[in-house]
Amino acid sequence: MRKTEVHGTVADGFGEVREEFTAFVAEENGEPGAQLAVFHHGRQVVDLWAGADVTGETLTGLHSSTKGATYLVVALLVQDGVLDLDQAVARHWPEFAVAGKAGITLRDVLTHRTGVIGAEDGFTVEELADDRVIAARVAGQRPLWRPGSAYGYGGFVTGALLGEVVRRITGSTIQELFEARIREPYGLDLFLGLPAEHEPRYLPIQPWLATPEQRAEFEAYSPAPHSIAGISYNLGPAFTPADVMAFPNARVVRAKGQSSGGGVGSARGLAALYAAAVSEVDGRAPMLKPDTAGEFAMLHSVGTDLVGGPVSYALGFQAKGQSYPFLSTHAFGHNGSAGSEGFADPRTGIAYGYTRRRAAFAFNAPENERLAAAVTRAATALS
Amino acid sequence: MRKTEVHGTVADGFGEVREEFTAFVAEENGEPGAQLAVFHHGRQVVDLWAGADVTGETLTGLHSSTKGATYLVVALLVQDGVLDLDQAVARHWPEFAVAGKAGITLRDVLTHRTGVIGAEDGFTVEELADDRVIAARVAGQRPLWRPGSAYGYGGFVTGALLGEVVRRITGSTIQELFEARIREPYGLDLFLGLPAEHEPRYLPIQPWLATPEQRAEFEAYSPAPHSIAGISYNLGPAFTPADVMAFPNARVVRAKGQSSGGGVGSARGLAALYAAAVSEVDGRAPMLKPDTAGEFAMLHSVGTDLVGGPVSYALGFQAKGQSYPFLSTHAFGHNGSAGSEGFADPRTGIAYGYTRRRAAFAFNAPENERLAAAVTRAATALS
Amino acid sequence: MRKTEVHGTVADGFGEVREEFTAFVAEENGEPGAQLAVFHHGRQVVDLWAGADVTGETLTGLHSSTKGATYLVVALLVQDGVLDLDQAVARHWPEFAVAGKAGITLRDVLTHRTGVIGAEDGFTVEELADDRVIAARVAGQRPLWRPGSAYGYGGFVTGALLGEVVRRITGSTIQELFEARIREPYGLDLFLGLPAEHEPRYLPIQPWLATPEQRAEFEAYSPAPHSIAGISYNLGPAFTPADVMAFPNARVVRAKGQSSGGGVGSARGLAALYAAAVSEVDGRAPMLKPDTAGEFAMLHSVGTDLVGGPVSYALGFQAKGQSYPFLSTHAFGHNGSAGSEGFADPRTGIAYGYTRRRAAFAFNAPENERLAAAVTRAATALS
Repeated sequence: MRKTEVHGTVADGFGEVREEFTAFVAEENGEPGAQLAVFHHGRQVVDLWAGADVTGETLTGLHSSTKGATYLVVALLVQDGVLDLDQAVARHWPEFAVAGKAGITLRDVLTHRTGVIGAEDGFTVEELADDRVIAARVAGQRPLWRPGSAYGYGGFVTGALLGEVVRRITGSTIQELFEARIREPYGLDLFLGLPAEHEPRYLPIQPWLATPEQRAEFEAYSPAPHSIAGISYNLGPAFTPADVMAFPNARVVRAKGQSSGGGVGSARGLAALYAAAVSEVDGRAPMLKPDTAGEFAMLHSVGTDLVGGPVSYALGFQAKGQSYPFLSTHAFGHNGSAGSEGFADPRTGIAYGYTRRRAAFAFNAPENERLAAAVTRAATALS
Repeated sequence: MRKTEVHGTVADGFGEVREEFTAFVAEENGEPGAQLAVFHHGRQVVDLWAGADVTGETLTGLHSSTKGATYLVVALLVQDGVLDLDQAVARHWPEFAVAGKAGITLRDVLTHRTGVIGAEDGFTVEELADDRVIAARVAGQRPLWRPGSAYGYGGFVTGALLGEVVRRITGSTIQELFEARIREPYGLDLFLGLPAEHEPRYLPIQPWLATPEQRAEFEAYSPAPHSIAGISYNLGPAFTPADVMAFPNARVVRAKGQSSGGGVGSARGLAALYAAAVSEVDGRAPMLKPDTAGEFAMLHSVGTDLVGGPVSYALGFQAKGQSYPFLSTHAFGHNGSAGSEGFADPRTGIAYGYTRRRAAFAFNAPENERLAAAVTRAATALS
Repeated sequence: MRKTEVHGTVADGFGEVREEFTAFVAEENGEPGAQLAVFHHGRQVVDLWAGADVTGETLTGLHSSTKGATYLVVALLVQDGVLDLDQAVARHWPEFAVAGKAGITLRDVLTHRTGVIGAEDGFTVEELADDRVIAARVAGQRPLWRPGSAYGYGGFVTGALLGEVVRRITGSTIQELFEARIREPYGLDLFLGLPAEHEPRYLPIQPWLATPEQRAEFEAYSPAPHSIAGISYNLGPAFTPADVMAFPNARVVRAKGQSSGGGVGSARGLAALYAAAVSEVDGRAPMLKPDTAGEFAMLHSVGTDLVGGPVSYALGFQAKGQSYPFLSTHAFGHNGSAGSEGFADPRTGIAYGYTRRRAAFAFNAPENERLAAAVTRAATALS
């Protein structure tokens, strides 16, 4: 088998997507170990993969694409009236109400406006694997900026903050709710807590490939440990950008399915998640009503992310139309450090899922833009 | 008559303005079909025009320079105590109070912070000509961003939102109030609703001239139809940037005098409007008291306009001192797509009006900066 | 004595700082007339100076590094419960409650969000020397932007706004409180109001050195007098950037110790001020409790400063970690026009003070970054 060979199928009208995927894989010498899955109005139309050992059933680390699953649980609870976006976090979690955090709402958490984005002295991998440990540690902290005055991506902790509120109100963890309400009913290949029986399908994330020049340039721009970005990425002597990438390779992280970055899945799982959120799938109504989807896709934080990166946020989800100009203002999703990405664009009915086990250099996987563009062109032509 | 010949007069001390206008017209090969008028402390000091068919009496489309007239009506109503800037729009327009819009104030509308900037599926030209049709369509929409969290220019709809509130409170349209309180009393050559008897003076806006390279570059950067900017500019298969430019060429648009971009006038009309706003003209007191002018010139929205363009907004009006460094913090005005512009700078007593019927390439008419600079130098030297 | 000779001492482990300082002085041909002082956990570890006439005892103008002293007084009053950051300024200063300023809080003043940053027609040097004259003049003004909607550095007036509130509440000026509570008890060589007996130690600020090209470039980018930045820097025909630099050279300014820029001191004084704020010094507890230091170091205003410069503000103090990536999110301080700078980084226990009597070109003294980096490396290696 040639490394660059592409496997899988596409539906009529999506041939251009296969061509784009094939071209990308060839340019990367077959290295990315990538999967691409797309649903269109609830029906899978793209199911492709390429790379040594990788199949359509392969599971790998999703990093922050995990947050899409976490936010979907939150959206369902808001839709049910269980959570109130504009209520103070501290109402249900009194330990949080210190050092100027009493007024912080769930909406602030979802829009990265709290200033609570990590722990200054860093977490060990074992601590970082556990949402409750994270929540207990950050509860007493002073925010890094005046809450509401700015936004900065809370890479490792946002899910834990949400999870603590969810747990205090419902008695269940986000992981339990995800399993019961979403993963199991839809049979998704996307886990917040990977059962041991699925472990054989897990392929570890591989470090990125970089020339010495790239490596030097990356290091020159790496955030210092005690900077805002350093705190968000948990950087320090004992935790480097390579450890960010390797995070889901630790069994404890996968086992607990940490809600900010410990999810495991396939491109099929990611795409099916977003399809179930906004489309009728196999006769089942979309999980999100239009009003809920509308609110969670509405732009909330735009401008300068203090952690870095020109990302605009809707409610938790990234506002994908701000990143990819061909998507609509209704598109929402999330990407992850190694290059994985999932999103839905209700305007075209697209649900997109992508993974790569070979990490993209410098947390940057531009192939998503060209692949998503090809998907959008194909879907639009069919409408 | 040579195409590049410049007609009209300037007062003593404003010779440099004639020279600058002449130089610009020559550089453009006489093509812009431009008019320039300036008042200084309420007295007209510049009255120039150039280009085939154009005279000082020519009327052409003002596009968003129209908004200056609309905002002046709003400012008068605020000054009279009829409108309250910080009251919710929905108090007078209950249909607007849906999808998170209940708290939106008139100040939010005037500062482009509502997230309501167009209709996703676009308007036809006939719909877009009618403020009431626009208002009815957008009333039920979800904002494109959380109201108050960001700003983005509502090119075609801002006037309609204001107009609906004005109509519900006063029983009159902005067009009626403009005619009765401003245009007729001052005899302005600037119409929100061009009467048939003035139609012969209307010269249509002409498409911009561009090399193939310019055309290609412009198209590469044109906003996608379903993006935020695409929605603001009403772009789609049936409405292109060329249709934005041609908007006032539709008789229905001119006849109704749509309050965001359907005004028709001359440079004299624009300059006289701003002169009447802040200066004593022919023995009449300025329309705006200093406190009103101060509030409407005060910077409100600065930073990143989500629709694009580095424009800072005062209350409705553009904060001209942010665009032109030689103007003061009191300067306020508005420009239009084809290149027209009107503003006042109360510090120097300048009121400026400019039109061009040949649209400026890419919505960009940099001649306003050099002309306004020459005007400011001349006025400052006289003080 | 060679002009480039460096005098003074460093403690064990800080040899690299002396090398860096020496290298910088040599690159500048001995011209800067600089002092560098550093405390580490309350103990002085660096005490260096270089340049003709300059000694460790030399006093010179601190410009806006003065604000560090002023803000420390404010922080103490907040810590004592005398000032409430979120109370309206106008509650104690009713004349301020006009033109939309009724809701402005002390926190708004400290974070440069008031829009009150100068007087449009400028101040004379005599007026600008007197905080009470400044306060009386700006009390009735309309803000330049809607309070809270943006931030812009109020170079000459921020201290006066704070001082007026302090005086109305306590009956004392900031200068009196600084002398009684901070300067005298700690024996600091940093004065808000230089007594005549210390005048002989004052060396005037010298104009910057610039090539004709640098001069031309600087002038091309200088703000216009009636722009926002022009108002903040008091620019006009009678007050140029050179006058900004010469401000502390006027005896009236030094004598009154204007709280925004009229302070006089040495590097030792600056470093000792920040050491006393956050460290145990000579057996005395830090002046600021951790909660107070935390709040005053917390980021409040970040993004686009309307006056210019990419500076982020904590509460009054500059958020030094945003300027210098090697500092932590706890670092706070302030710099001044000629190049002086003071800051503390509680994480490493550093307190830094730097002066130069030869003004840095274009208000830009990049040597602070390299010196502070060397200090941080040395302190970190010792920990």
